[in-house]
Amino acid sequence: MHVATVIGTVWSTKKDPTLEGLRFLVVRPFTTDGKESAETLIAADPIGAGIGERVLVVHGRAARHAIGKGHDIGFQTAIAGIIDTMDLADGRRIGGHVDSDERAPESSD
Amino acid sequence: MHVATVIGTVWSTKKDPTLEGLRFLVVRPFTTDGKESAETLIAADPIGAGIGERVLVVHGRAARHAIGKGHDIGFQTAIAGIIDTMDLADGRRIGGHVDSDERAPESSD
Amino acid sequence: MHVATVIGTVWSTKKDPTLEGLRFLVVRPFTTDGKESAETLIAADPIGAGIGERVLVVHGRAARHAIGKGHDIGFQTAIAGIIDTMDLADGRRIGGHVDSDERAPESSD
Amino acid sequence: MHVATVIGTVWSTKKDPTLEGLRFLVVRPFTTDGKESAETLIAADPIGAGIGERVLVVHGRAARHAIGKGHDIGFQTAIAGIIDTMDLADGRRIGGHVDSDERAPESSD
Amino acid sequence: MHVATVIGTVWSTKKDPTLEGLRFLVVRPFTTDGKESAETLIAADPIGAGIGERVLVVHGRAARHAIGKGHDIGFQTAIAGIIDTMDLADGRRIGGHVDSDERAPESSD
Repeated sequence: MHVATVIGTVWSTKKDPTLEGLRFLVVRPFTTDGKESAETLIAADPIGAGIGERVLVVHGRAARHAIGKGHDIGFQTAIAGIIDTMDLADGRRIGGHVDSDERAPESSD
Repeated sequence: MHVATVIGTVWSTKKDPTLEGLRFLVVRPFTTDGKESAETLIAADPIGAGIGERVLVVHGRAARHAIGKGHDIGFQTAIAGIIDTMDLADGRRIGGHVDSDERAPESSD
Repeated sequence: MHVATVIGTVWSTKKDPTLEGLRFLVVRPFTTDGKESAETLIAADPIGAGIGERVLVVHGRAARHAIGKGHDIGFQTAIAGIIDTMDLADGRRIGGHVDSDERAPESSD
Repeated sequence: MHVATVIGTVWSTKKDPTLEGLRFLVVRPFTTDGKESAETLIAADPIGAGIGERVLVVHGRAARHAIGKGHDIGFQTAIAGIIDTMDLADGRRIGGHVDSDERAPESSD
Repeated sequence: MHVATVIGTVWSTKKDPTLEGLRFLVVRPFTTDGKESAETLIAADPIGAGIGERVLVVHGRAARHAIGKGHDIGFQTAIAGIIDTMDLADGRRIGGHVDSDERAPESSD
């Protein structure tokens, strides 16, 4: 399970037939200490997450459940939820959008 | 399987319907040499762990079992136990709460 | 799930009988910040990816599905799709072939 | 799958009911080049390993099998074997106990 | 899935009964850029790989299939194939034995 930021979209024409009709997003895991992972994940998105949104990414059976096309599919990673906020013990609050951290006092999106 | 410290709470409104009613905690893995992982995990909490508590985090089928909502759910990580203490071969004892290590001689929590 | 570049072919004569007839490619994961992973993966290729192409690599049950020989097989990693492009939030576009990045203004296939 | 050294014991009172009666050990993965991993794992121990012993640690279904309480349990990591020795191609022999390496000429264990 | 070199043998007397009769090898993952991983894996070997040989290592269900003792076993990693050669896009060829790289012009093996 990862927390990640949506940073792009993937297009693929030649693929396993069970991947037809799925929306594939590029997501980048992040950590609560403000670092972004160098890792790049692709997640099927059955929920409708937008660029910059922070999301819960699940794998394996949980991802197949979230995708909703049964277990005989050729993909294993999916977005299971869009994060509103993360409230941390040290008092920090991580917003649900990458811009909500950076332009805090401004009227953002 | 990880040992981790509970460091926050996650709120998500738009999510897979099977995630409704679950409590999601932010947990940070730690190691016995006192380092905290940079990794950030989100775990469903069916047990009632509090901020600062040290917990056993499980994944996959074990997590679905611990969550207790069957195997057709969109999540794969859960807290399976709250740690009382870890007794190490070198004589150290790691407490069940992040504060139990730091304020040892004081009356803590 | 990985995004990776196809960088070679593996030949193996002495192997589990269920691996007969599968094409095995050497793939190298990459990230959106342009780094290539030091990790080396071998993926069964049921799709027909070529050297230099960027692909979606899946594992476990998803890989067995993509391979299409049922679940009683001795392999767990496969190519599930060939990437056309990845459009990133920062305006960059990653092409579907390792050469499409490097010879941008040239007529590259 | 990991090779690891048993370095401690974990106590947990508040836990998933299926974890009752299991013995939980703290184990630290090691590598053949003599380095110990910073990673800390907790493994259920159905075999009776002692502090300092080197063990085979398995995960997932294999771990549930080794634990022997069926597949509806809330844990996923277990000790499947205690190592006698590891004989390496470069002539080195790694003993089955962390002390067998260090006090070689003494009567150990 | 890993590509790895066989570097040793593991002996274990006290183990899960389903591990009886299996041959356990120490394998070290490698990458195509010539680096050897610090990681140490133990793989059951149903194929008969020798010291120094390069192999395909699989995990989970694929490993249980390769081992051939059904799915109720206490191990999850196995050798699924012995590599003959890996032909890379940059013209390099990685041999099927660790010595085939080092003593290229000599009569090796």
